[in-house]
Amino acid sequence: MGALRLPSLPAILVRPTTTSRSPAIFRRNFPFLQQAAVGFSARSTAEVPTDNSTKTKTQDRVVTSRSQDFNAWYLDIIANAELADYGPVRGTMVIRPYGYAIWEAIQEYLNVKFKETGHSNMYFPQFIPYSFIEKEASHVEGFSPELALVTIGGGKELEEKLVVRPTSETIVNHMFTQWIHSHRDLPLMINQWANVTRWEMRTKPFVRTLEFLWQEGHTAHATPEEAEKEVLQMIDVYTKFAYEQAAIPVIAGRKSKVETFAGADRTYTIEAMMGDRKALQAGTSHNLGQNFSRAFGTQFTDENGLRQHVWQTSWAISTRFVGGIIMTHGDDAGLMLPPRVAPIQVVIVPIWKKEEEKSDVLSAAVNVCEVLKGAGVKVKLDDSEQRTPGWKFNFWEMKGVPIRIEIGPRDVSNRSVVISRRDIPGKQGKVFGVSMEPNILVSYVKDKLDEMQVALLSMATSFRDSDTEELKVKEETGATIRCYPFEQPEGTKTCLMTGNPAGEVAIFAKSY
Amino acid sequence: MGALRLPSLPAILVRPTTTSRSPAIFRRNFPFLQQAAVGFSARSTAEVPTDNSTKTKTQDRVVTSRSQDFNAWYLDIIANAELADYGPVRGTMVIRPYGYAIWEAIQEYLNVKFKETGHSNMYFPQFIPYSFIEKEASHVEGFSPELALVTIGGGKELEEKLVVRPTSETIVNHMFTQWIHSHRDLPLMINQWANVTRWEMRTKPFVRTLEFLWQEGHTAHATPEEAEKEVLQMIDVYTKFAYEQAAIPVIAGRKSKVETFAGADRTYTIEAMMGDRKALQAGTSHNLGQNFSRAFGTQFTDENGLRQHVWQTSWAISTRFVGGIIMTHGDDAGLMLPPRVAPIQVVIVPIWKKEEEKSDVLSAAVNVCEVLKGAGVKVKLDDSEQRTPGWKFNFWEMKGVPIRIEIGPRDVSNRSVVISRRDIPGKQGKVFGVSMEPNILVSYVKDKLDEMQVALLSMATSFRDSDTEELKVKEETGATIRCYPFEQPEGTKTCLMTGNPAGEVAIFAKSY
Repeated sequence: MGALRLPSLPAILVRPTTTSRSPAIFRRNFPFLQQAAVGFSARSTAEVPTDNSTKTKTQDRVVTSRSQDFNAWYLDIIANAELADYGPVRGTMVIRPYGYAIWEAIQEYLNVKFKETGHSNMYFPQFIPYSFIEKEASHVEGFSPELALVTIGGGKELEEKLVVRPTSETIVNHMFTQWIHSHRDLPLMINQWANVTRWEMRTKPFVRTLEFLWQEGHTAHATPEEAEKEVLQMIDVYTKFAYEQAAIPVIAGRKSKVETFAGADRTYTIEAMMGDRKALQAGTSHNLGQNFSRAFGTQFTDENGLRQHVWQTSWAISTRFVGGIIMTHGDDAGLMLPPRVAPIQVVIVPIWKKEEEKSDVLSAAVNVCEVLKGAGVKVKLDDSEQRTPGWKFNFWEMKGVPIRIEIGPRDVSNRSVVISRRDIPGKQGKVFGVSMEPNILVSYVKDKLDEMQVALLSMATSFRDSDTEELKVKEETGATIRCYPFEQPEGTKTCLMTGNPAGEVAIFAKSY
Repeated sequence: MGALRLPSLPAILVRPTTTSRSPAIFRRNFPFLQQAAVGFSARSTAEVPTDNSTKTKTQDRVVTSRSQDFNAWYLDIIANAELADYGPVRGTMVIRPYGYAIWEAIQEYLNVKFKETGHSNMYFPQFIPYSFIEKEASHVEGFSPELALVTIGGGKELEEKLVVRPTSETIVNHMFTQWIHSHRDLPLMINQWANVTRWEMRTKPFVRTLEFLWQEGHTAHATPEEAEKEVLQMIDVYTKFAYEQAAIPVIAGRKSKVETFAGADRTYTIEAMMGDRKALQAGTSHNLGQNFSRAFGTQFTDENGLRQHVWQTSWAISTRFVGGIIMTHGDDAGLMLPPRVAPIQVVIVPIWKKEEEKSDVLSAAVNVCEVLKGAGVKVKLDDSEQRTPGWKFNFWEMKGVPIRIEIGPRDVSNRSVVISRRDIPGKQGKVFGVSMEPNILVSYVKDKLDEMQVALLSMATSFRDSDTEELKVKEETGATIRCYPFEQPEGTKTCLMTGNPAGEVAIFAKSY
């Protein structure tokens, strides 16, 4: 599967910052990391000096300005928002609860869509005999440089090395040969949620790690038309997910030959433009033709009694998508999460000065929290007394929570709350006097969440469109063809390099 | 984690049948399997000769009688009900959609309970530096004989071998040292759903495989009392799951020293009695004391400013539980699934003889299917025309579907259906003339599902209690202490071997 597979991309394009220009916590040259240092993680007790005016200070947290240094900002956000941490083995990542909850939101949505489109979940072993990988010529060429191999099991040297799965087409075909006999066994449409391992040299949290989590769909069909229809259906599921849930205006299209998955006839992709104007391959759907079925002898008896090789597809989305969400919507203040994938949609900050105000404010806050929870809103009450309200505002903004509700003594007596939207900074995003009356409050909050979901997609779309033209002409600077978009502009097309007539428009961009 | 960890059990107790006394499909000496043969899997087109009167013949399927040969029956069910298949690497298993859906039912229930009890999901890398495993003395002793080691990555020999996680206490502690600073960071309560690898020599589908799926909870606390409370809380969650969802009357209790998890102070377990009167360890919860926190230096500053080692727990349930469900409830006709974990709760079989009856029968069947689906019942309409109704009855019985609905031409004209319960064989379980009227039908079906859920637990409980006394005295035949039950009988206790007074009653059994 090719969600993280970019065989032709020069490594220089994905090189992270190697010089650390600021003391921010998570900034480190991840690829060359051998052992995570104690104290590397951010937690509420960590103290970090601030000596840089381009940073947003969340009291004891420091986030580099996004416009100043996008890569440093990205790593700071991942540390400070507690999304992930480095594992002890070079290039591995620990996905922390807040980051994992975003992945769970992705899973929940897609899992339903996969089942609705006729796929069943199952699980294949992760150890694949080395000989399997060698069976499909372009597959072994694409994957062999980055395999992790188990050579010792139960204290003994193994007779055949085992590959820790980098993708499962080979073992899937091995099993399909046992399950597929007749045309009545087709189509066979399955999916698995699993971990995969690729020995990447240049790594970056979420975007490219040694081990990552994904889903991989695998299907077998009786005709090439059915396979092509499936491949397009699944890239469409991914596209809808990107637009409607992640608020990312991806461009769906076909990959160039060089960027096609190792073993596929055709690869479709959704490409997303990140905040630094680089492209992120966010999901792929491969028409495998009969490449694997011929290599493994995956055949069926058709309606005329003839033996035929099946036509196959595979498609994947991975934890890389979490990186895409961070890099699409974040700003200088930190993360900004689309409500539909946000682990916490609403945070409630109670505010009091005098001790006699506390109990009324807290009980109103608890009440509002229960009302929203009962209405299915993902809500958190931050009633800790160790931090000031101002610290909490900055902290939850940095964590990207879509809506903040403030409740103070005056609000309690007015039976109202103050509501702020994460995507509209300062006073413009702040509305006073929203009634606490459950029906009014719930519908107000839900409307605001919907509005913000739409606003994030719209902002990202404007950003993408304002920059796409520029990117086309930047080819000579190292940008690669991201895809040939399904939606082509009308009129005559001309080749940028030669001036000759061209059949299709391609999207070029630097890539992660 | 010890869900599949039985360090002290002699291998002979879990030896599968080595001589194949029947031609049934899945019967093979799994441990010594090197490569799965083509045609090994059962699918609707497979043809198998029948030459044994002790088998139930589902037309082209053959299931060994459960009473005749329990192990052969178990393997036949797994093949014929399409629960799992052998992977290409010795001892690995492919979990097929029907088997995986049972695991999904387990996950759905437990995932909610874990969150309700304050745990967050996250994900740790599966590659663990070899040196980590060596840090806790009894841990390395318990696990080192069965490790899978990655020695080559990206084409190069690695400087330090990497362990493919057999359990995650070591890497969890490595990360905890970075996240835990003060008593305000405690308790830290997390869980992960993951695959784990143990190089087992004696394997058996679901019960013990080289790679398996599980959840592993890990928590850190400021006091030993809190840790003990957590350990007991989680064994209680498992116990409730077993009784209320899986209809398995497990016995919860404490493990003997020899059976305690490698690295724990105390292990609690739920032990289930299988249909062959052997015990299955179905879930474990470990009080790790300070063993790992001392080995890894996982410390916090307490309220008095003193540095203390944290008190830890870990607890796990695995895909082994699917094996437990099969072996608790199955009978000679095949699988029998408790409604709450059944992937299909109701199967509808339309019956017609004359072509002119077909359309009315099918449209009534589709209608009943939609009504039940709309009411949240997991329902399947088997309208395939390649099989007779009789074949379908046997097939879905073998698959363990709790309720079958038959609809024929007479039923259509009477506006009623025929309903059969999987747990009550023959005519006793069959009710004619149940109204098709949606409200009546839905409430009838839901009542029957509830009744069957209760009946399966009750049957399994009677079976367990009728045999427990016998097992106690069988100690000398090789049975081991499964646990010291929380619920102890009243009155004086005497040691079986010495006749001396005893403090506690222990449960002995042969074990998987």
